[in-house]
Amino acid sequence: MSSIRISRVDITPVAFKDPALLNAVGVHEPYALRAVVEVSTDQGLIGLGETYADEGHLRRLRVAADAVVGMDVYALGPMRQKVDRALGNERGSDGHGLTGLITTSGTLDRTFSPLEVACLDIQGHATGRPVSDLLGGAVRDEVPFSAYLFYKWSEHPGHTPDSWGPALDPEGIVAQARRMVKEFGFTAIKLKGGVMPPRQEVDAILALHEAFPSLPLRLDPNAAWTVETSLKVARELEGVLQYLEDPTPGQENMACVAREAAMPLATNMCVVGFDELPSAVLSDAVQVVLSDHHYWGGLQRSKLLSGICETFDLGLSMHSNSHLGISLAAMTHLGAATENLTYACDTHWPWKDPDEDVIVSGSLAFVDGSVAVPRAPGLGIELDRDALQRLHEQYLRCGLRNRDDTGYMRSLHPTYERKSPRW
Amino acid sequence: MSSIRISRVDITPVAFKDPALLNAVGVHEPYALRAVVEVSTDQGLIGLGETYADEGHLRRLRVAADAVVGMDVYALGPMRQKVDRALGNERGSDGHGLTGLITTSGTLDRTFSPLEVACLDIQGHATGRPVSDLLGGAVRDEVPFSAYLFYKWSEHPGHTPDSWGPALDPEGIVAQARRMVKEFGFTAIKLKGGVMPPRQEVDAILALHEAFPSLPLRLDPNAAWTVETSLKVARELEGVLQYLEDPTPGQENMACVAREAAMPLATNMCVVGFDELPSAVLSDAVQVVLSDHHYWGGLQRSKLLSGICETFDLGLSMHSNSHLGISLAAMTHLGAATENLTYACDTHWPWKDPDEDVIVSGSLAFVDGSVAVPRAPGLGIELDRDALQRLHEQYLRCGLRNRDDTGYMRSLHPTYERKSPRW
Repeated sequence: MSSIRISRVDITPVAFKDPALLNAVGVHEPYALRAVVEVSTDQGLIGLGETYADEGHLRRLRVAADAVVGMDVYALGPMRQKVDRALGNERGSDGHGLTGLITTSGTLDRTFSPLEVACLDIQGHATGRPVSDLLGGAVRDEVPFSAYLFYKWSEHPGHTPDSWGPALDPEGIVAQARRMVKEFGFTAIKLKGGVMPPRQEVDAILALHEAFPSLPLRLDPNAAWTVETSLKVARELEGVLQYLEDPTPGQENMACVAREAAMPLATNMCVVGFDELPSAVLSDAVQVVLSDHHYWGGLQRSKLLSGICETFDLGLSMHSNSHLGISLAAMTHLGAATENLTYACDTHWPWKDPDEDVIVSGSLAFVDGSVAVPRAPGLGIELDRDALQRLHEQYLRCGLRNRDDTGYMRSLHPTYERKSPRW
Repeated sequence: MSSIRISRVDITPVAFKDPALLNAVGVHEPYALRAVVEVSTDQGLIGLGETYADEGHLRRLRVAADAVVGMDVYALGPMRQKVDRALGNERGSDGHGLTGLITTSGTLDRTFSPLEVACLDIQGHATGRPVSDLLGGAVRDEVPFSAYLFYKWSEHPGHTPDSWGPALDPEGIVAQARRMVKEFGFTAIKLKGGVMPPRQEVDAILALHEAFPSLPLRLDPNAAWTVETSLKVARELEGVLQYLEDPTPGQENMACVAREAAMPLATNMCVVGFDELPSAVLSDAVQVVLSDHHYWGGLQRSKLLSGICETFDLGLSMHSNSHLGISLAAMTHLGAATENLTYACDTHWPWKDPDEDVIVSGSLAFVDGSVAVPRAPGLGIELDRDALQRLHEQYLRCGLRNRDDTGYMRSLHPTYERKSPRW
């Protein structure tokens, strides 16, 4: 095949409804923001990527998109170099505080990622091959995901209640889990913590353990605790948790907890880029890394991360933000091609209104908690242009431009303070 | 594209003339052995791989080859798993002592490698893409190699002298370098040491430095020295060597030398598999790893090694055994797609009789010490079946079945003893 050159890149920010999910830095706003990246080529093939839509990120995406026009979709190494040069000093940091501090190399990885995914999608369409084949071949036919439980309000103030109802105590969390496990068949459960005092979150986990004695459980307080509190929780949940995720901020504190905790510590906060791996390995600060192709630089670099985890005897799981179908497809192909995917992946999918997405429905479905790996070419999904337009108009209408869980919480509860650690 | 299934795998051992090159464990035999692996598919596409041809390796290759018949050439992850299962307890160790001890996982990597290269060659032919594109795209158009100097005899006893003449002292080494640099344009020079007493090898490097003041120099005594000797040499060659390769056996000794030596230490002996990386990183035993797709599990896993080196701030170079054109093509594609190839790669190419190869000549050439990356589909080379047959007949005739530099040396000099360290 002759070269397949990028002729244009369209970046469309969209907004989709998001329930009032609570976390350690505030509460999800009424709409989650994402950007849909469409890479068009001189041969008429189009590839899709999905990423964040904060304003700074959109600005950097545009710089990167302009830089890659004219390049061949197989020239991913040179493309990454060109994006790096084009970004120059235009680097940004993650404002919402849930995935660590974004370094210079992290900005490149975040910006390049949706372009890489879209180019792999195009390669797949050009060769008739699913993206998992381009990543070394699928070692599994379906990828397991975990139920992702949240403390939540029944509705955003002033909005209609969602169908899930409130979850503000262990009983509410167990009820949420029952519905989610019943509807999706998940075989692992994660609770987003850091919201209630540690005692209540421990009780919620114990209640989940009683309700689902055979399912692995995880708790993620997003660095809301001191080392001392983390160790107390670790002792109380010994034999109950599959892993404890980011109990406390920073590798140094994590290493202190790891030395005494019985269960593995996982992270998507203190190791979010390749430059943070050496110190984590040397200090044994974490035993499980949550990959996420959106900030680890795309699918090929996420494969590199998995190889590093395998080499250095680290477990591997997968992180998720609120996302749409393009990301779910990419996560599924990556999970399929990753031999050492030690744990079921996170996904916010159940929290998304089933009527809201940018892809034609039907290609991705949860059965027994897993998503079957599409065998169609590329990502195996199709863009729904009407839906894209609707969600873009919703973006324009909703007024949100940057994710700000803390600011939203403060607008509702002016005395709310962001603290890490809080307890 | 529908699946491309492997219909048969042919493994043909070949022998090609090799000069009497001296090293730390003896001397190259009159013929070097390689195996040519041809993977045929149900769609008529054929892919090529090249690997070792020792008897145990050939036996394991046959087991692996039989296991992958019927599999899709994109299913590399599942293929590796299947080869692993098929090998069972059939694991072997490297007998010649120049590339470390081969562990269980190392056997799998060595056995799987030529199959992976051949499948990538087929993927390239199926898509019209060079293998470098399938590895993430070429970040350079040509790959630099280094001059690989050897102490040598003028001929194998009883054979016709080769055109290079003897090299048994610094003057002989410098003369060899002059011819090699003139003919190939190399811009870096490596001397295979561990042959003469360290004093003479230091003098040879100093003479090379005087003759080629602008060229980076490397010395590789294949673990022939004690820590003390290594440190003495390191002091004498401070500011002269680009890196010192495997001065002493084992990571522990290497770490002792690394703590005091001014130049980086490189290795293809104490880190030859992924399972040896963690301890090397923790002890800072080496600063440069020599990759080699023949024993690091193929081209994709060699890319993983390069990513690990980049992440853990290790330099990356490339190791070579005596090889033919299929390997040179694979090494060139890998080098092209590896951003952090810090050093010019090793190659034994100049020691091969230009009239002996298994590929049609013309696709690979050295210009200014570099090989232009083929842009033709796959590896960009073509098998010469007549030549393959001739070199196979030479294999049958020559009687050699396992590389044994020490045994050959002992047959000529019965008092020769293999020792590491020797000095």
